[in-house]
Amino acid sequence: MTLAKPFLSDNAAPVHPYVWEAMRKADEPDNPYDGDVLSRELDARFTALFGRECAALWVASGTAANCLALGTMVQPHGGVVCHREAHIEVDEGGAPGFFLHGAKLMLAEGEGAKLTHADIAALIDPIRDDVHQVQPHAVAITQASEYGRSYGPAELAALGAFARKRRLGLHMDGARFANAAAFLGGSPEDAARSASGPVDSLAFGFIKNGGMGAEAVVLFDPEVAAQVRYRRKRAGHLQCKGRYLAAQILAMLEGGLWLANAAHANAAAQEVAAGCGERLLHPVEANELFVRMAPAEREVLRAQGFAFYDWGADSARFVTAWNTKAADAQALGKAIAAL
Amino acid sequence: MTLAKPFLSDNAAPVHPYVWEAMRKADEPDNPYDGDVLSRELDARFTALFGRECAALWVASGTAANCLALGTMVQPHGGVVCHREAHIEVDEGGAPGFFLHGAKLMLAEGEGAKLTHADIAALIDPIRDDVHQVQPHAVAITQASEYGRSYGPAELAALGAFARKRRLGLHMDGARFANAAAFLGGSPEDAARSASGPVDSLAFGFIKNGGMGAEAVVLFDPEVAAQVRYRRKRAGHLQCKGRYLAAQILAMLEGGLWLANAAHANAAAQEVAAGCGERLLHPVEANELFVRMAPAEREVLRAQGFAFYDWGADSARFVTAWNTKAADAQALGKAIAAL
Amino acid sequence: MTLAKPFLSDNAAPVHPYVWEAMRKADEPDNPYDGDVLSRELDARFTALFGRECAALWVASGTAANCLALGTMVQPHGGVVCHREAHIEVDEGGAPGFFLHGAKLMLAEGEGAKLTHADIAALIDPIRDDVHQVQPHAVAITQASEYGRSYGPAELAALGAFARKRRLGLHMDGARFANAAAFLGGSPEDAARSASGPVDSLAFGFIKNGGMGAEAVVLFDPEVAAQVRYRRKRAGHLQCKGRYLAAQILAMLEGGLWLANAAHANAAAQEVAAGCGERLLHPVEANELFVRMAPAEREVLRAQGFAFYDWGADSARFVTAWNTKAADAQALGKAIAAL
Amino acid sequence: MTLAKPFLSDNAAPVHPYVWEAMRKADEPDNPYDGDVLSRELDARFTALFGRECAALWVASGTAANCLALGTMVQPHGGVVCHREAHIEVDEGGAPGFFLHGAKLMLAEGEGAKLTHADIAALIDPIRDDVHQVQPHAVAITQASEYGRSYGPAELAALGAFARKRRLGLHMDGARFANAAAFLGGSPEDAARSASGPVDSLAFGFIKNGGMGAEAVVLFDPEVAAQVRYRRKRAGHLQCKGRYLAAQILAMLEGGLWLANAAHANAAAQEVAAGCGERLLHPVEANELFVRMAPAEREVLRAQGFAFYDWGADSARFVTAWNTKAADAQALGKAIAAL
Repeated sequence: MTLAKPFLSDNAAPVHPYVWEAMRKADEPDNPYDGDVLSRELDARFTALFGRECAALWVASGTAANCLALGTMVQPHGGVVCHREAHIEVDEGGAPGFFLHGAKLMLAEGEGAKLTHADIAALIDPIRDDVHQVQPHAVAITQASEYGRSYGPAELAALGAFARKRRLGLHMDGARFANAAAFLGGSPEDAARSASGPVDSLAFGFIKNGGMGAEAVVLFDPEVAAQVRYRRKRAGHLQCKGRYLAAQILAMLEGGLWLANAAHANAAAQEVAAGCGERLLHPVEANELFVRMAPAEREVLRAQGFAFYDWGADSARFVTAWNTKAADAQALGKAIAAL
Repeated sequence: MTLAKPFLSDNAAPVHPYVWEAMRKADEPDNPYDGDVLSRELDARFTALFGRECAALWVASGTAANCLALGTMVQPHGGVVCHREAHIEVDEGGAPGFFLHGAKLMLAEGEGAKLTHADIAALIDPIRDDVHQVQPHAVAITQASEYGRSYGPAELAALGAFARKRRLGLHMDGARFANAAAFLGGSPEDAARSASGPVDSLAFGFIKNGGMGAEAVVLFDPEVAAQVRYRRKRAGHLQCKGRYLAAQILAMLEGGLWLANAAHANAAAQEVAAGCGERLLHPVEANELFVRMAPAEREVLRAQGFAFYDWGADSARFVTAWNTKAADAQALGKAIAAL
Repeated sequence: MTLAKPFLSDNAAPVHPYVWEAMRKADEPDNPYDGDVLSRELDARFTALFGRECAALWVASGTAANCLALGTMVQPHGGVVCHREAHIEVDEGGAPGFFLHGAKLMLAEGEGAKLTHADIAALIDPIRDDVHQVQPHAVAITQASEYGRSYGPAELAALGAFARKRRLGLHMDGARFANAAAFLGGSPEDAARSASGPVDSLAFGFIKNGGMGAEAVVLFDPEVAAQVRYRRKRAGHLQCKGRYLAAQILAMLEGGLWLANAAHANAAAQEVAAGCGERLLHPVEANELFVRMAPAEREVLRAQGFAFYDWGADSARFVTAWNTKAADAQALGKAIAAL
Repeated sequence: MTLAKPFLSDNAAPVHPYVWEAMRKADEPDNPYDGDVLSRELDARFTALFGRECAALWVASGTAANCLALGTMVQPHGGVVCHREAHIEVDEGGAPGFFLHGAKLMLAEGEGAKLTHADIAALIDPIRDDVHQVQPHAVAITQASEYGRSYGPAELAALGAFARKRRLGLHMDGARFANAAAFLGGSPEDAARSASGPVDSLAFGFIKNGGMGAEAVVLFDPEVAAQVRYRRKRAGHLQCKGRYLAAQILAMLEGGLWLANAAHANAAAQEVAAGCGERLLHPVEANELFVRMAPAEREVLRAQGFAFYDWGADSARFVTAWNTKAADAQALGKAIAAL
């Protein structure tokens, strides 16, 4: 099934040619699981990218990446503060409850699906410090957020300081980390560091950005990596032909492909945004647009071959990807402007 | 890293060319998760193969496949009877404890890592029927077993009857199901049916047999498939580009590739077996050989370029795969005979 | 420590003399766990009280009672709808996450901490019927509610019909079930039936009402009792001298002591209410009062020897119990009126 | 039901009069949960008894005590080494799987249901240090053992050294700790210290020894007490009238009642043992006797009014308690001798 002008989601885009090529090169026999040459490169490659020591493990989904990372910070009797509309709360089928053995998601409010330290404090300050109430053990933020908003370095620094003060772990769901990094700009190293700030762990997404089935769990406290390695196996996520996953990630890192792909998607989003004017519900800081649009208007666009999701009764969501054609994005921008 | 004459394991073999081809064909955008055309074919294809209605879901590992299937049969306060040397007990990092929320593995003894109903009864009959002791809810067998032994139809029928009588679910870990089926012989349909008998669920392995990262959970009670679909998501195993997993499985089913690959591996194992004589610890009924062999003898083989694992102090394990070269297998058989 | 005029909570009141007496009578050796004569009477006694077949098991806390009952209705990947201020959400230390193996509490809004079917529908109707979102498996209501409000038979019938239609289990947290029943009135049998309506399970509280350490899990589908018996043991709640718990419960049932004690507490609450006028935040339908009251006013009361909890910045909570002295209640009512 | 000459178990014995008295004295209102005066005394009282700082919490069962303590040492992906016949493996309904979120019990062999460091090493040394195999996190021993055997100070010191070297937690299931302590002898302080050695935690049993429904979880690393407090609540084990549990424990500690009761039971066991001669299957080092005895011989004893359990086909188990009458014990010893 080919979709003419697809803006449904980046999660079904094809695999980038360089990723295919790297997977084919991995087709020689090597040690199983993560004992192969490629998997063993990951720690060093991510350490170089982020400029601080880290461990990095592949897994097949962002859900697994988020939950394995949170498991290093949250005991089963604790809680994770996240935004009320965070993916881990809304769209992961209860995975945090499973991986964290019943720990609780604690839902904060924040503009643009982002959280400030004040948002978090408003939620957790009223919690009595007694055993009858679940205590927060960690905070999870999403970069870019569920509304395509990006955290800048100053925001991340403030969150990091707050988390340290409150003795909370700080995890970043980076399903669209690359798009946030591209929005913040700079070299791959600069962008990666700006966009991650002082988080303790990052689920670094590649699948939406040209990969096939590999995300990276990045742990900036390598001490906890051993736990994650055991729990990845325990969760059935230690694939025996792991070299094909490592190959995907290394291909994405090579030459900054991850950032270039995201920059392409972001640029396409800006093309669309140019036609949206006052219709935009959120600033476009990554590759997603949330656009006020009446049902009849949406029908007009669909009749022109644009595919996208409704977002509630009065809006639409458009997502660009690494393979979005510039012409399609421009056409969409113009079509919206013409409504 | 290329291994000259590799008999270490089938779990690191390369991906079959037809599987690669099918994955490349899946590179058009389609619905994410398991909403794509390929994933939606699976139920019908496995129903046709087994000749009884079933649901089939892809997952990325045999560990996940086994545990998701067992979750349909075993409540958290129950137990699963398996062989003391079963993979779920020995080599899955405690995954059953995780997926089954603390249910217990109950370890039976049986010849060749197989279980008979008498072996199971010997374990469970002494369990007091009271709340102080964990009660068995299911039995898990491995086809082919951890020692490369296959269950025949009569053995499976007897186990099925026993399980029904005792109200136990019956699950089959089929990491090397294809090898057992090839040993039993017949057309793909005949072989699949003979090798699965009346089990309630099957973890049908493809990865060791030419796939990359897709196994099938086959549920012969389609009523329980809904639970597995929810729990697959909850375990982070619902990959968003699921079409690449479905493509692998469909390619393996196409034209009976799964059975042909396994038959090739089994034939290679028989070539090796021909040189082993009295050294064999177990009859060779699939693609694994356990061979009595002194340390010095193993060194002789390794000096000739054969790669394999030690198996305890006095033996070695050799595994053939879909890509084992006939010449290598013959050479190994001769080399062993010449020791 | 003796508190002069205690309205802090009913959960620290002493044990009723008849309960003491029954416990002392249980001091003869008998079978351990729940094999004793007293424990074995419970099913029949509760069946007679409620007029429909049920199983009844003692446990040491309402938290355990609620969670064991919910475990019969909710799979680990499902959810429980409850009020945002329900005790299981706010004050049980995450116990549902533990007992339900990571299932999710889904928080509805409702007046007076009660839920109507419309409140529930407003929460669950927007949930997409797909595996990415946790689906509700049950509803838990509290009788009397966290604000001392009682559900009447018609309300319960409507909730029961809704739950059946949506295939949701319906559980009642009855930590103060007796107070609700006393509010609804009638003989013990009439009151018990009115106050429980068509729920599937009830955590019938005795501890706040004159007991020491025994609540009853009442299961109106006796088929599920076996599961609860196993899980009670598994949770460490099968005490070996269970006869002392059964004795407490039987003493409370004997001659309707449970209802008389609650009626006494409710009457005391009405004495207090008589002095509150417009200050009452909620109608008084059980034994709790939530009263608008400035900090300075609270100090006045405390200076007169009344003990109670602040309830937010501008209110106070008063709770009466089976042993509240009528004179104290009248004095408190007058003191509030005089503020 | 009164049993004429009961040797079935100590777990159904009545409550000691001093315990009753203490519970009655606790009948004044006090703070709920563990905020009462009595509960707050526990840490200091146990610290004085053991001569090293510890935290002590009441719970209602040994199962809960063991599992909460183990939770401080064992992560969900780890394992607990215990004897194959340990109570936590055989008779707790899978509670460790529940409280430890799927962690694994790893079963060692050892004489008399005791474990030496050599027994433990024999089990864990073969475990590969990789993520496919569950790694041990703790060892649990039982004092006195399931066969009524006691560990002496030297044995405990050796186990402690081994555990430290292997970085394993060391927990003691002390359901009959008092009987072991009484066997080792000395003042309450001396006996408690000898019998506990260097363990990290102890489930100190009182229920079998004159209590009603309170055991103590003793944590010799008070840092971990906070976790246990949260998890006790989360498991529904924080009873709201906790003062009645604290009262039981304090009464047992007062004047060394716990040790006197156990010494009485042990003495009765020795009276019985005196008649057993060669029939004894295990040395009698606490209050249990395992006695070789043909079915017909057991019938002879039962006809004389002795109550006890069969222990397999050819033996019987006799248990004495704090209230065993000396005359009954002597009579039993003579009756056995006369067989």
